[in-house]
Amino acid sequence: MLIQASCLLDFTCTTQVPTTFMLRARSGVGQFVIKEELHTSPFRTMTEFTDNYGNLCQRIVLPEGNFRIESSVLADCMPTIEVDHNAGWTAIEYLPDFMLHYLLPSRYCESDKMADLAAEITKDFKQGYPQVEAIRQWVHSNIRYQYGTTNSSTSAWDILSTKTGVCRDFAHLGISLCRALDIPARMVTGYLYGLKPMDLHAWFEAYLEGRWYCFDATQTEPKGNRINVAYGRDAADVAFASHFGPVVLNRMEVKVEEKVM
Amino acid sequence: MLIQASCLLDFTCTTQVPTTFMLRARSGVGQFVIKEELHTSPFRTMTEFTDNYGNLCQRIVLPEGNFRIESSVLADCMPTIEVDHNAGWTAIEYLPDFMLHYLLPSRYCESDKMADLAAEITKDFKQGYPQVEAIRQWVHSNIRYQYGTTNSSTSAWDILSTKTGVCRDFAHLGISLCRALDIPARMVTGYLYGLKPMDLHAWFEAYLEGRWYCFDATQTEPKGNRINVAYGRDAADVAFASHFGPVVLNRMEVKVEEKVM
Amino acid sequence: MLIQASCLLDFTCTTQVPTTFMLRARSGVGQFVIKEELHTSPFRTMTEFTDNYGNLCQRIVLPEGNFRIESSVLADCMPTIEVDHNAGWTAIEYLPDFMLHYLLPSRYCESDKMADLAAEITKDFKQGYPQVEAIRQWVHSNIRYQYGTTNSSTSAWDILSTKTGVCRDFAHLGISLCRALDIPARMVTGYLYGLKPMDLHAWFEAYLEGRWYCFDATQTEPKGNRINVAYGRDAADVAFASHFGPVVLNRMEVKVEEKVM
Amino acid sequence: MLIQASCLLDFTCTTQVPTTFMLRARSGVGQFVIKEELHTSPFRTMTEFTDNYGNLCQRIVLPEGNFRIESSVLADCMPTIEVDHNAGWTAIEYLPDFMLHYLLPSRYCESDKMADLAAEITKDFKQGYPQVEAIRQWVHSNIRYQYGTTNSSTSAWDILSTKTGVCRDFAHLGISLCRALDIPARMVTGYLYGLKPMDLHAWFEAYLEGRWYCFDATQTEPKGNRINVAYGRDAADVAFASHFGPVVLNRMEVKVEEKVM
Repeated sequence: MLIQASCLLDFTCTTQVPTTFMLRARSGVGQFVIKEELHTSPFRTMTEFTDNYGNLCQRIVLPEGNFRIESSVLADCMPTIEVDHNAGWTAIEYLPDFMLHYLLPSRYCESDKMADLAAEITKDFKQGYPQVEAIRQWVHSNIRYQYGTTNSSTSAWDILSTKTGVCRDFAHLGISLCRALDIPARMVTGYLYGLKPMDLHAWFEAYLEGRWYCFDATQTEPKGNRINVAYGRDAADVAFASHFGPVVLNRMEVKVEEKVM
Repeated sequence: MLIQASCLLDFTCTTQVPTTFMLRARSGVGQFVIKEELHTSPFRTMTEFTDNYGNLCQRIVLPEGNFRIESSVLADCMPTIEVDHNAGWTAIEYLPDFMLHYLLPSRYCESDKMADLAAEITKDFKQGYPQVEAIRQWVHSNIRYQYGTTNSSTSAWDILSTKTGVCRDFAHLGISLCRALDIPARMVTGYLYGLKPMDLHAWFEAYLEGRWYCFDATQTEPKGNRINVAYGRDAADVAFASHFGPVVLNRMEVKVEEKVM
Repeated sequence: MLIQASCLLDFTCTTQVPTTFMLRARSGVGQFVIKEELHTSPFRTMTEFTDNYGNLCQRIVLPEGNFRIESSVLADCMPTIEVDHNAGWTAIEYLPDFMLHYLLPSRYCESDKMADLAAEITKDFKQGYPQVEAIRQWVHSNIRYQYGTTNSSTSAWDILSTKTGVCRDFAHLGISLCRALDIPARMVTGYLYGLKPMDLHAWFEAYLEGRWYCFDATQTEPKGNRINVAYGRDAADVAFASHFGPVVLNRMEVKVEEKVM
Repeated sequence: MLIQASCLLDFTCTTQVPTTFMLRARSGVGQFVIKEELHTSPFRTMTEFTDNYGNLCQRIVLPEGNFRIESSVLADCMPTIEVDHNAGWTAIEYLPDFMLHYLLPSRYCESDKMADLAAEITKDFKQGYPQVEAIRQWVHSNIRYQYGTTNSSTSAWDILSTKTGVCRDFAHLGISLCRALDIPARMVTGYLYGLKPMDLHAWFEAYLEGRWYCFDATQTEPKGNRINVAYGRDAADVAFASHFGPVVLNRMEVKVEEKVM
């Protein structure tokens, strides 16, 4: 299905602020980017680089005053997420080298502290996909989605106490519990068609039997038509904007629409 | 200056043909891609990967019958090429590691056979930029631009005999002569505003005192407003289409226009 | 100065345990590896890969029973660490792309929580090297070195409360405080000649004015003759052994000696 | 089987000569490096980097006068090469992305000119391993091994006329014919136990059904106990020494011995 998505950010800076954006989606498994654009006002060019995870990052020094950036993308997407209850766990010795990296704890995913909880949640489930789905459902049922209860320092360990959070927190907890079971897991940010209320979204993927599967603990029943924008270990790697200085975000507007060919 | 460029390719295949395209420009030094799109008819998705040179490549199996692909890009470009007659030669021991690669001979650039010629051409010039400019002018003056005199097997060594060629041959000879003097050189394919007749173009870059400089031996006086699409050692690395099977190219249409913001 | 260093690890496993080692030093800035060897008993081969940080990693499934691994290296090292009190801070917009990564918080380095503390510690110091040296001295003076007070889950934030730790904790705190000031910082594990008691060691590096500088908060006056073995964001990236299963470490023996040519 | 191999090179330079060596073997598929050392006289350190093919390269400026370098390695090797007459051809659309690179022509392997010859040689053979083995035998039977008939500019195309060459030429021709059939092929340099006369050796590998297979056209019946030192498209990528200036090689001594554990 063709999805047209866009994200508009409107900032005010009282001084120049070096910033890194991660706003431009690229083609990947199950996703083909047909058209992609990035406009700023006032007009500025940026330098771009590809990070360790293959994400395209934009570097710019935001000017004093108002600055608007709008990223939009037209992509062919999978209408449903792939589900395979028979996808097994991959023993560590058979993981590709670069996958080991996704077993490690990271800033917001203290998997090293969650072995017992992960074992408890998944004790009645077969290794592999069923474990991850059990984790997803447990997070969905035990954490309450609520804006304003967490901030950019909140980790998976933190929300185990508060039991509330937003999409990034749900993803962090899912990732942490997977890694605690030696299942590689990573964070994805992007667009989800039909999300309510519409916003930039975050979810997680688990690597099972040779491929990544999509899991979204914020949804009762995860849907497809997602555009993946950035991948990483956790939110530290995939922030849509990293500002090195004070910035006010006046407005953020996300649109995701079906496009008929 | 904003440049809008596009390339339309129209093929006919009598069988399925695996193909790799290199058609999507990316941001780089002096070039910022604002908008980029790739359309095919009939509609097909592709897989994309980034090669050793940072180029974005598209893989597809061309279907039997007609197939049309159109790539277009809007980019902010440098209106003039940078020229610095004082840019010196970088001694080999001070080259960055990955630059050594551009000193080696390659398929179409037999630099190992051209030490004497390169020395002769540049004997009255200062090391560095003046040498490369002397090479560029020598190629421009000694090779006649003529379509149909060379093919995909023609190398720089070959055109030293025939004295004719097209843009890729001019670039190969320039690259070979630079490498023969231990100056890193690479090929660039892309768009050039105002090129006559309009076509996909190729030129070369030489690495001098810490940065790449643009040289174009097909032009009397090289102009800016170029969109770089692909980089590599020579044409083997940067073919806009590599077909693994028989394909007829019915039509190719390239447009490059100034765009007012 | 030539340094001969070795590390012997003696394990017992009650089951097969997939393990990743990071034990083989490589040449780098100020360090040239002349001779390097890795022996195991019983004899086993391993697969090796290079991670995102350039570290050479060894993968093996430890067999049931006893397993001994001994890594040794002979390297030419710098007899003193480089110190430059005039090395300034590099503004974010001038950092190389891949350096941005070392500004982010990571599992054991919650730099996002330490902006105020970092500002307080360095308020009387010039930007750059003097700030980092102030951080190093503050950590050295305020944290007590004591074995057994921390474990593999202890982060920099944790030891701000307990005020005790070992070399990895000292490094984590130093790194976190640097990043809180937008100074790229990374962890190094390796050998230090003359360390008492002798052990595998960890310290940190800060990137200032175009190069990495060595800082060691465990020492009153940091000394040279170090062999760097692994680099990373924090201990999650550079563990000398990551076991995916239960392993008993019976013995660990580290030797570091001067070698006369 | 454990193999101990070493290579001693003795040079004289009348001026300082920047040089890149590729002399240090690394672990890889079927090869585990236990011990590795590099000594020079007079003593010099080098900088090392890893190239696009994963080879460890050493950079140094050779001093005026005599210079000796000795590289030695102890590795666990496969006693026989793997042979699988049923290993099929991998269709291009199923090759991993980075494998496409090994289908391209390169400096010494003008595969673009050899489609007819490759088809003729392999016309009676099944796609895949049997084709490559037919190529290997054809090269072995049709090219005469003779020192001094070729030099560093000789390509595969050249030896099709002269019908003579040394190991690197045999490898280049084998590689070219494979690529002409859309079979990825690469060059390997290294040590071969039992080679007569003993020397640094070169051979080729073809990628068939998901893995690389070893082929050696200089041998009647290829044997194992090889230590791979460097990989690349052809000799341009894997020269054991690339000198950028005049150097006299006084002596070269290669030893390869079985080592009992």
